[in-house]
Amino acid sequence: MARKQHFNFGRVRSAVIATSSPTPTLPATLEWRDDSLYLLDQTLLPLHSASERQDSAEQVWASIRALKVRGAPAIGVAGAYGLCVAMQAGRSGTGTAFRARVLEQAAYLNSARPTAVNLSWALQRLVDHVARSAENDAGALYLDLVREAERIHAEDVALCDGIGTHGAPLIRPGCGVLTHCNAGALATTGIGTATAPMYKAHAAGTPFRVFADETRPLLQGARLTAFELQCAGIDVTLITDNMAATIMQSGQVDLVIVGTDRVAANGDFANKIGTLGVAILARHFGIPLYVACPSSTLDFATPTGAGIVIEERESDEVTGFGTYRSAPHFIATRNPAFDVTPHALVSGFITERGIISAPFADNLSATFHCSPPSRP
Amino acid sequence: MARKQHFNFGRVRSAVIATSSPTPTLPATLEWRDDSLYLLDQTLLPLHSASERQDSAEQVWASIRALKVRGAPAIGVAGAYGLCVAMQAGRSGTGTAFRARVLEQAAYLNSARPTAVNLSWALQRLVDHVARSAENDAGALYLDLVREAERIHAEDVALCDGIGTHGAPLIRPGCGVLTHCNAGALATTGIGTATAPMYKAHAAGTPFRVFADETRPLLQGARLTAFELQCAGIDVTLITDNMAATIMQSGQVDLVIVGTDRVAANGDFANKIGTLGVAILARHFGIPLYVACPSSTLDFATPTGAGIVIEERESDEVTGFGTYRSAPHFIATRNPAFDVTPHALVSGFITERGIISAPFADNLSATFHCSPPSRP
Repeated sequence: MARKQHFNFGRVRSAVIATSSPTPTLPATLEWRDDSLYLLDQTLLPLHSASERQDSAEQVWASIRALKVRGAPAIGVAGAYGLCVAMQAGRSGTGTAFRARVLEQAAYLNSARPTAVNLSWALQRLVDHVARSAENDAGALYLDLVREAERIHAEDVALCDGIGTHGAPLIRPGCGVLTHCNAGALATTGIGTATAPMYKAHAAGTPFRVFADETRPLLQGARLTAFELQCAGIDVTLITDNMAATIMQSGQVDLVIVGTDRVAANGDFANKIGTLGVAILARHFGIPLYVACPSSTLDFATPTGAGIVIEERESDEVTGFGTYRSAPHFIATRNPAFDVTPHALVSGFITERGIISAPFADNLSATFHCSPPSRP
Repeated sequence: MARKQHFNFGRVRSAVIATSSPTPTLPATLEWRDDSLYLLDQTLLPLHSASERQDSAEQVWASIRALKVRGAPAIGVAGAYGLCVAMQAGRSGTGTAFRARVLEQAAYLNSARPTAVNLSWALQRLVDHVARSAENDAGALYLDLVREAERIHAEDVALCDGIGTHGAPLIRPGCGVLTHCNAGALATTGIGTATAPMYKAHAAGTPFRVFADETRPLLQGARLTAFELQCAGIDVTLITDNMAATIMQSGQVDLVIVGTDRVAANGDFANKIGTLGVAILARHFGIPLYVACPSSTLDFATPTGAGIVIEERESDEVTGFGTYRSAPHFIATRNPAFDVTPHALVSGFITERGIISAPFADNLSATFHCSPPSRP
């Protein structure tokens, strides 16, 4: 899979590659190599691709803040390795000084995106790990820290892999799959969540076609999903969000797979703005809708979707694209970043432990609630 | 209404006005003044506004081709006055020469947008009018031509007005109205079709709020509808197309009004891409959907929507906007310009003769079929 290929730029600090060939190689979201963290700058995608070595905590902080790395799972892993980068300066000191510095640096990195739950979760896990360690040598504690970050990374890869394995059989030969936004390899350090079944089905030789909604206002579908599926050689067609209905009407969509940012206890789920519309259209046309859902996104503390607070973002995302302005000055806008889809429109949740069917409140709880998820 | 105000630039060839005040004045789509045709260059909207005097048939042809004037009703009127401009060179010759030149110039102007039915209809009406005229003096024939063009213009204004009068009562005080694309004043020479009930309700003092879908890929909602309603002082909020579902879910939409490009005999209708999705969402949330429909868009020769051919446009509209490119190179796209909504999702057609309810095949035919519409 293209996912596993890396830029071969050795000690070069960054590489800019114009993705102008029909099948560019998908760069890794991040890498830990030769005791260094490399982060893909996703703000340059899809036309350019640059991976940057992170040489300080400040640089990692700025990369997370600037959305060079995005997607909750990817941010968690980037934060974990970022803490390792931050601690390289402390590895020749005492164990006590190392433990104090870990706390301080974790708090600093966490401030890059305070609402990203995976970031605080990963940092807290490392802080706890160091606190519990029997080692009292800074060098040994540093190596322990790196190994724990590598475990967090490996767990993310495995979570994606599990979703892919369980979801791939949904993709029948010749089928048309529609997806929205980017719950892809670029949002994780593995093969993504909503895209995982696609990568697995493609690797197994199943022929199918994907329709990627461009996903206004930030265009993650056009910039990221279309790009990463194209890199993998998957047959992907880009559409504007408002074309989904006519494509479904024409009979070309057999299955919808989307990601999620949070799933309430009853199965209502929040995801990128536009998901609710896609779900209603799918139901209208009798097309099943599956939600790729790592157990880390289950929120049993929130009974229903009514309890999910939706972030409202800046107007300028709606009034134009990049430097292009489409709307008149002084125009009122709405810009909810997410919407909430009621569980009644969901055919199933594709999790790392299998596909969960209705009744969701019972079945999600039975599968995951008694054994807390490995992620926040 | 702002619609009736004009730029006061006398003999100045064109005026560019940066629309940077909170309530800019809506410039007229076109004007016939001092024996001259002025066309608004809509490609500059919403940030700039320029009206250009048309000094030759070639200039009118180029303005229509370049979409400086767009919207089927507006193109028809622009073509009619354009033929007057084209004939100004012939008004001192013989009546016979004038009649020959009218044929030639009408054919030339018609080639600017050969598929715009209103353009060919208006030009044919003028050709027939001159052919039937008893006058045999070129100067008198020219004046006859101008008077007929002015009648076409007045009829367009009256058609919009009739739709507004019949549709305004649908807009109850405090109601939320959602619209898609631009079937507005800028697409006609009157108060638009889908917007006509809004202008009438606003003039009557009814308080209401409009949500305007931006309408990818060409953003007519953001560039034109948001602009013209803002100019009129109507409370308008711009949203991306994929936000319509969550706005409806929140209970803020009581009514959807859209325009149409063609209505089949059974009431299935074609309109800008995204209309089908809006109609399905409206039905899901129990919100009535009305189609503003001048009788000129009724096509009794097409039994159902299945017979409506949909234009597929260039990929570059989907892969970005203006100079901004959002998608990777070599990406496959779909770009249907329109979609077809089945009549079962329509609550009623707002026509210049009243609101037509189901069963549409019977009621549209009974109202309009026996007396052919005044437009193609």
